[in-house]
Amino acid sequence: MRPPAPAAILETALYAADLEAAAGFYGGLVGLAEIGRAPGRHIFYRVGSGILLIFNPAATEIPSGGLPVPTHGARGRGHVCFAATRDEIALWRAVFAAAGVAIDAEFDWPGGARSLYVRDPAGNSVEFAESRLWDDTPPP
Amino acid sequence: MRPPAPAAILETALYAADLEAAAGFYGGLVGLAEIGRAPGRHIFYRVGSGILLIFNPAATEIPSGGLPVPTHGARGRGHVCFAATRDEIALWRAVFAAAGVAIDAEFDWPGGARSLYVRDPAGNSVEFAESRLWDDTPPP
Repeated sequence: MRPPAPAAILETALYAADLEAAAGFYGGLVGLAEIGRAPGRHIFYRVGSGILLIFNPAATEIPSGGLPVPTHGARGRGHVCFAATRDEIALWRAVFAAAGVAIDAEFDWPGGARSLYVRDPAGNSVEFAESRLWDDTPPP
Repeated sequence: MRPPAPAAILETALYAADLEAAAGFYGGLVGLAEIGRAPGRHIFYRVGSGILLIFNPAATEIPSGGLPVPTHGARGRGHVCFAATRDEIALWRAVFAAAGVAIDAEFDWPGGARSLYVRDPAGNSVEFAESRLWDDTPPP
């Protein structure tokens, strides 16, 4: 018997060597609720029904010694996209401008959905997009 | 005026140089619905109200030439976790065993939630976990 395909992503991971800087961005500027922190290793945030995990790859590439959690760790620029309405995207633009965070891009996709992109302090590409961006994708 | 903190993660990204192998895993074995594909660059899947993006970093590190989508691209082992019930996790264990995919780990967290970990063909750490894993986290 096959299980049904997963119906939700529970955890999304990004990587940042400087977790304090990441906390200033995700907790401070974006306003996510922090739900866990291991200094030097990770900071976790709740985002609705999902969890955003920010890991220091130098720490997660090493077995933790406690529970047998598999190692992982990526370098380079990852990507995450948060859902936002068009009005909220305009407010985010102002929030980032006031904080001196450069807007990487802002445009409407061919289907009409708007996206705004900034970088977190680690260089990850952070997008705020209207959920309808994916509404019109044809069934496979 | 500040926007509310994001209430949902719309897109979660992983990276894989071999997208065909990734498709065999996420589309074939895990059974996710494919909603977009650009050969050599990406494959996209719907997971409930969210989207899983699998990118070839060698392609996304280069500007696309069309819309001004910011570049990104990570190397190394990323992480994603899909929600699953305890019964579904037992079924996933059998699915992966039948497919010759090694189980990286399977255990109960201190709060009682179960997690199962495998690797996708690119080495990303793919977890199936009971959603209650995060239910007991104290408010920040």
